[in-house]
Amino acid sequence: ALTVLLDPLHPADIADLIEQFDDRHRRVFLEVWGSEIDGEILSELREGLREEVILALPQETLSDAVRDLDSDDVVDLLEDLEESQQALILGALPAIDRAQIEQALAFPEYSAGRLMQREVVRAPEHWDVGQTIDFLRAADNELPDQFYHIMLVDPRMRPIGYVALGRMLSSPRSTRLADITEDSFRTFGVEQPEAEVAYAFNQYHLISAPVIDAEERLVGVITIDDAMAVLDEEAEEDILRLAGVGEGSLSDRVIDTTRQRLPWLAVNLVTAIMASLVIAQFEGVITQIVALAVLMPIVASMGGNAGTQSLTVAVRAIATRDLTGSNVWRVVRREAGVGLVNGLIFAVVMGLVGLFWFSSPQLGYVIGLAMVVNLVIAGLAGILVPVALDKVGVDPALASGAFVTTVTDVVGFFAFLGLASVILL
Amino acid sequence: ALTVLLDPLHPADIADLIEQFDDRHRRVFLEVWGSEIDGEILSELREGLREEVILALPQETLSDAVRDLDSDDVVDLLEDLEESQQALILGALPAIDRAQIEQALAFPEYSAGRLMQREVVRAPEHWDVGQTIDFLRAADNELPDQFYHIMLVDPRMRPIGYVALGRMLSSPRSTRLADITEDSFRTFGVEQPEAEVAYAFNQYHLISAPVIDAEERLVGVITIDDAMAVLDEEAEEDILRLAGVGEGSLSDRVIDTTRQRLPWLAVNLVTAIMASLVIAQFEGVITQIVALAVLMPIVASMGGNAGTQSLTVAVRAIATRDLTGSNVWRVVRREAGVGLVNGLIFAVVMGLVGLFWFSSPQLGYVIGLAMVVNLVIAGLAGILVPVALDKVGVDPALASGAFVTTVTDVVGFFAFLGLASVILL
Ligand SMILES: [Mg+2]
Ligand SMILES: [Mg+2]
Ligand SMILES: [Mg+2]
Ligand SMILES: [Mg+2]
Ligand SMILES: [Mg+2]
Ligand SMILES: [Mg+2]
Ligand SMILES: [Mg+2]
Ligand SMILES: [Mg+2]
Ligand SMILES: [Mg+2]
Ligand SMILES: [Mg+2]
Ligand SMILES: [Mg+2]
Ligand SMILES: [Mg+2]
Ligand SMILES: [Mg+2]
Repeated sequence: ALTVLLDPLHPADIADLIEQFDDRHRRVFLEVWGSEIDGEILSELREGLREEVILALPQETLSDAVRDLDSDDVVDLLEDLEESQQALILGALPAIDRAQIEQALAFPEYSAGRLMQREVVRAPEHWDVGQTIDFLRAADNELPDQFYHIMLVDPRMRPIGYVALGRMLSSPRSTRLADITEDSFRTFGVEQPEAEVAYAFNQYHLISAPVIDAEERLVGVITIDDAMAVLDEEAEEDILRLAGVGEGSLSDRVIDTTRQRLPWLAVNLVTAIMASLVIAQFEGVITQIVALAVLMPIVASMGGNAGTQSLTVAVRAIATRDLTGSNVWRVVRREAGVGLVNGLIFAVVMGLVGLFWFSSPQLGYVIGLAMVVNLVIAGLAGILVPVALDKVGVDPALASGAFVTTVTDVVGFFAFLGLASVILL
Repeated sequence: ALTVLLDPLHPADIADLIEQFDDRHRRVFLEVWGSEIDGEILSELREGLREEVILALPQETLSDAVRDLDSDDVVDLLEDLEESQQALILGALPAIDRAQIEQALAFPEYSAGRLMQREVVRAPEHWDVGQTIDFLRAADNELPDQFYHIMLVDPRMRPIGYVALGRMLSSPRSTRLADITEDSFRTFGVEQPEAEVAYAFNQYHLISAPVIDAEERLVGVITIDDAMAVLDEEAEEDILRLAGVGEGSLSDRVIDTTRQRLPWLAVNLVTAIMASLVIAQFEGVITQIVALAVLMPIVASMGGNAGTQSLTVAVRAIATRDLTGSNVWRVVRREAGVGLVNGLIFAVVMGLVGLFWFSSPQLGYVIGLAMVVNLVIAGLAGILVPVALDKVGVDPALASGAFVTTVTDVVGFFAFLGLASVILL
């Protein structure tokens, strides 16, 4: 009955379903339906759950599942498993495949070598369309499920161009492959980070691209569906890191999620205590004018928000390579300018609030002035902090927030309370 | 000399270069090199700049540029231009193309109908491989630059399946197309939102997919490179919206950027003033125990951060369809649990800080208790607010932040100062 329901579903949707079960339902589901799980479902599953599901599968189901997959999906499946489980799966593969997978696992994590599939359709550079078609018809059973280009290789197996299948199909049999190659041809090195690969696929509208080893020999091919998944993961990583959330997912348990979120909260606590130390310097002023305690969070909060705006734009622009050495100073000037204009606008607004709420023009001046100072600083910190972090090799998405809000909190409280003690006392 | 430098560059990189110039350099560049700008460079340019560049081009350059493009790129180019400029470009196209473009522009913005290209390679369902290859060879000049599937259509032009080009190439001439169609076949309606299309391409590893009109007739095809661009744009939109930054880019002027960022800062000001109103209720307590003013931002700040963590995870999970009706209550319970555990941990830490800094055990109790309350509320608000916004059709990425930080500020100050006035006075 379950099979009737699940059969029409795409493996990716079945994987999503398994992810949405709670622990108990998942166990029951795997007992009842485990033997139906195939390689595609496994490779669509979130990493955190694969181990659990793999352990629950009968050995034979697992072997069948893995044999159906392209090499890139097997690598993706294996890379996060423990050695004993890796051995189990590798044992189910034919010797040649096993050697290829082990080679791929030797490349660094998140590299082109891990992302590529070993199944490549290639042809010698001197072949013509007719020869290639005859070769493909003869090789039908050994071809990868999906391929979009024929890679042309020289005698030393170095890729020198590729032919789009559409172009092949529309050319006469006598056409030389070398005469109908595509301009879009680009190669990636096995060690290149997958994020760079994904960027290039999106930037240059690639569909597939050869991967070469240190000797420039063709060792695999990356296809756009996998590059698209990486691009999506990179964006997700930035979204979560900007919010101070580590890797993790909805199906994690409370204790795991707590552990992921605690570090950033701890950093924030240090930040907040530093801000409190600033406030503590002004206890005397606050006791005399309690309105300062009422208004001071506004200045800090506006600075924090303006800083977050700038830093988010900067982090994203660094990721998409729109912010570079050649325009960084222009952007810095712009952020300062935006901070100044917004600062002046909200200075007037808050000045009026100060004036009417507490009937004190001086309080209005103080909060207005502090607002201008803090929003300009927020704009500057919001761009300079991520750029500096990127320069020293730290992911700006990860750490910018803590630095920028420390700056805006400290500057906000100091400017407001400091100006107050000078002007109001 | 410029041409020697720029010629080896991909149009996407030239477009990025133009985006990085400041206004003055861009004007100079367009004067010197404008006549070399082709359709691909135009369609890679950011929307905000296209108008400026198009106006700077000689009419003939523009006509040539547009005639080279696939229909989807022409639509993408036209949709953001003013009517007079649209007419200018449409006038440069042959009548048939023009009609197709005008039809596409009649579909809603951000729909599959806008994203698709009209150039489709199709074959009657009864054709065999040989017939199709002969047809493709004869049609060589009219084929789209890139295509990955042959769409099979019934006599009423409804798509009923597709054949991958690789499969075609490896099958004997006598094979019927209908016998080698792919399982991955999925159609989209012209009015379907492009975000749904992008999700489906990523989820189901699609490479191309037919688009059908209300009568289920094949009217175009969407290719993965365009779907990938949409997926990236959607992620970018969420990143920027979460930070309260409207659409915009690094090359905008100060005044435009100020205008984009001001609304969210204004919302934040209202939020901050509401928090101040809460503080104002406790002026009496603060005057008596000024340590409260020193410590109160810590409780609010920790709540704001914890709330942002939860809401970001929730917003992303809604976007990726991992958070659904079937697991929302489990996630709500989990967020409350995480808030409780983190709250208890930081309650102890802050309790000790309160104790040693101000030598007051009671102050330690108060801040610890307020921390627990605020982090639990933060977790709950962080999940419930985006889910509720999504339910009523508001983009949770856009508005969740303001609501959640209002809750954590108000609850943070109220719990801390309220408990202080009960316990300490
Ligand atoms: Mg999934
Ligand atoms: Mg895959
Ligand atoms: Mg992996
Ligand atoms: Mg793959
Ligand atoms: Mg990564
Ligand atoms: Mg990154
Ligand atoms: Mg670009
Ligand atoms: Mg395009
Ligand atoms: Mg557009
Ligand atoms: Mg568009
Ligand atoms: Mg296109
Ligand atoms: Mg959109
Ligand atoms: Mg969205």
